[in-house]
Amino acid sequence: MERNPYPLYHPCGIPFAIGGRVRSISDLVEQKPRLQNVEMKTSTEARAIDIKDKEVEAIDLKTSKEEVIQYDSLVIATGSLPIRPPIHGIDLENVFTVHSISDGERIIAAVQTAKKALIIGGGLIGIETAEALRERGLEVTVVEMLPSVLANMLDADMSEIVLGKLREIGINVMCGRKVEEIVGDGRVSKVRAGGEEFPADLVIVAAGFRPNVELARAAGIEIGITRAIKVDERLMTSAEDVYAAGDCVEARHLITGKPTLSQLATTAIRMGRVAGANAAGGNENFPGVLNTAVTSIHGLEVASTGLTSQAADSAGIKPVSMRVRVLDKPRYYPGAQPITIKLIADSNDGRLIGGQVIGNDAGARVNLLAFAIRSRTTVWELSKMEYCYAPPVVDDIEPLIVAADALARRLA
Amino acid sequence: MERNPYPLYHPCGIPFAIGGRVRSISDLVEQKPRLQNVEMKTSTEARAIDIKDKEVEAIDLKTSKEEVIQYDSLVIATGSLPIRPPIHGIDLENVFTVHSISDGERIIAAVQTAKKALIIGGGLIGIETAEALRERGLEVTVVEMLPSVLANMLDADMSEIVLGKLREIGINVMCGRKVEEIVGDGRVSKVRAGGEEFPADLVIVAAGFRPNVELARAAGIEIGITRAIKVDERLMTSAEDVYAAGDCVEARHLITGKPTLSQLATTAIRMGRVAGANAAGGNENFPGVLNTAVTSIHGLEVASTGLTSQAADSAGIKPVSMRVRVLDKPRYYPGAQPITIKLIADSNDGRLIGGQVIGNDAGARVNLLAFAIRSRTTVWELSKMEYCYAPPVVDDIEPLIVAADALARRLA
Repeated sequence: MERNPYPLYHPCGIPFAIGGRVRSISDLVEQKPRLQNVEMKTSTEARAIDIKDKEVEAIDLKTSKEEVIQYDSLVIATGSLPIRPPIHGIDLENVFTVHSISDGERIIAAVQTAKKALIIGGGLIGIETAEALRERGLEVTVVEMLPSVLANMLDADMSEIVLGKLREIGINVMCGRKVEEIVGDGRVSKVRAGGEEFPADLVIVAAGFRPNVELARAAGIEIGITRAIKVDERLMTSAEDVYAAGDCVEARHLITGKPTLSQLATTAIRMGRVAGANAAGGNENFPGVLNTAVTSIHGLEVASTGLTSQAADSAGIKPVSMRVRVLDKPRYYPGAQPITIKLIADSNDGRLIGGQVIGNDAGARVNLLAFAIRSRTTVWELSKMEYCYAPPVVDDIEPLIVAADALARRLA
Repeated sequence: MERNPYPLYHPCGIPFAIGGRVRSISDLVEQKPRLQNVEMKTSTEARAIDIKDKEVEAIDLKTSKEEVIQYDSLVIATGSLPIRPPIHGIDLENVFTVHSISDGERIIAAVQTAKKALIIGGGLIGIETAEALRERGLEVTVVEMLPSVLANMLDADMSEIVLGKLREIGINVMCGRKVEEIVGDGRVSKVRAGGEEFPADLVIVAAGFRPNVELARAAGIEIGITRAIKVDERLMTSAEDVYAAGDCVEARHLITGKPTLSQLATTAIRMGRVAGANAAGGNENFPGVLNTAVTSIHGLEVASTGLTSQAADSAGIKPVSMRVRVLDKPRYYPGAQPITIKLIADSNDGRLIGGQVIGNDAGARVNLLAFAIRSRTTVWELSKMEYCYAPPVVDDIEPLIVAADALARRLA
């Protein structure tokens, strides 16, 4: 059952609908996903789960009719909700989060008249929405509390490249500043951050997402230290035959072994496959996550997997890292573009624990690094990987190998 | 020592210099490669190796001065030579191979007046040169003996896509035909193939390469069944302290375990690293090859690794394969392009033995498949790989997973 009037939508597409690359935000809604032998109840909200009697209380949001549905097994996929920090003025008009289709519709409507946007948060959604609003011609300022943008994905030296790109397209980025107040009379007119005032007639709150676990919590299902639903390797919750998948669930990090909030669409999809199979009587394990992620900022691909140097430090792993910048194609081939790669290894044993790539095919390269990390590959092994070469595609030494060689020299 | 008057050149760039994308063929020559503590003798040809006394007889091609050089260890990297099949008329004017810089220069000179080109051979060099000549405005016909083009890289159904692209850009491709005669009076005027006559004032012989092993053979060094130099895992030849690397060496195929001619620049580079390290007292192993390769045909990336279905059959492995065609980006994202993936597994155990990708990021995807094959990954494991997603980059289920799922269903 799904609370929305449609079975499925693609939240990751919302910034691109705001920016106008996706023609209409309604393109993000799947009215008829290909599902075999699935009865889909839309506009239906689960109100309570009774884990003892194995039933769910639901309400039809259109008719207000209540219903109790028995289950043999259940999958909770209640997702996450945008965090609304307790900032004075956050409820003013023209202050939005980026989460639902209607959020997107409201932002697109506001963009028609707005001139100056301020984004609270320099994570993936904040940056993607900043670019989108800039594409719509707005003056855009991003305020990030941490010292750098995309701090979950990138070390500070790598995020400098992103910062350069954002500034190149005219986005003002202020790091290390906290938003103190959103000011306005009914509608937002300015934002105070780090003691300074920024005029703004549109504010985007992109301060992260919190797992939506109220339904599970009320049912007595165990919540983990990350405040997401705790599950075992098969994604079963503390309640028998109740599984959970997606942003509402905590995942085990493949390197630290500790619970982590992954909150990526890919993690949700991969978890959904496992939880669904197990709910249907299967026996699949969810291996854990490296939080592999990618975005594209004005054509510049930015991707990451595993731990950043700082996350490794926090996890008690002593990281050693190396950053290289090479051309993606041979020097003699016109149109060669720079690609920057940072590899991070455990200084103890030389095993890869993280990789960050900015440039062409960054996403595909990071997928390979994720595969390598999951196979417990060392830097020395990576530098012997087999690869392909052709002048119009890539230079004769794969950039990942250049990076691995450089890191191997540092480890030696 | 190097016979050419320069230390290094990039043969794989020659077709792109012919086509004009690489501005000047001299861009392919590296006059001063970055080498540390290496004395480079150019215009110097090795005439004989004495493996007992550990010396090489060489001649300075500019001064004709002879010299005997002692070695503690030696690396033979004599490469390969283009095969010139015993076709009547192959020595006519305007019949070229694509191997050396001077080959490239001669072809570029001939292109100024030539109108109709015929390419003998539909392998990588044949196809890349065909596209190059087409870009120069020539009428181009490719004649391939085998039933399909790029038969070393692609199954017949995948090479159909390449065929479609070649025809789209106006290249005439004739498969399953043997060239019987090159006809001309001094200069080529036509070619007879499969009983038909094709007018041609320029002929490219792209019929493959044979290992250049005369020097090694004359020295009494063992030659393998592939007619390339036989080496052990450390790339040492049958002669003590004599190593070999590159196209003149046979490599062990990682799946069949049998000797194979790899003849890829990447294999040469990877071998060179191992042979060089060992010649300098190191102890590195060369793991073998999957023959991972890529090219780009008028912007369409075509890549392959491991065994084709036919190569698997020949090696006594019963292959099971699946081909899928998906969009590289979400359906709702403008500019999404099709990507076609064929995965091949051993029907015995579901382990991946080959992968072929046509479309965006084909090369990077095939690198991941090569890594997976080398790690003895099954189709079921591949379908659980972690990956990244963002609408402007790739759809929410990585195309490799779509392919792995489809193949897994066939294996089930």
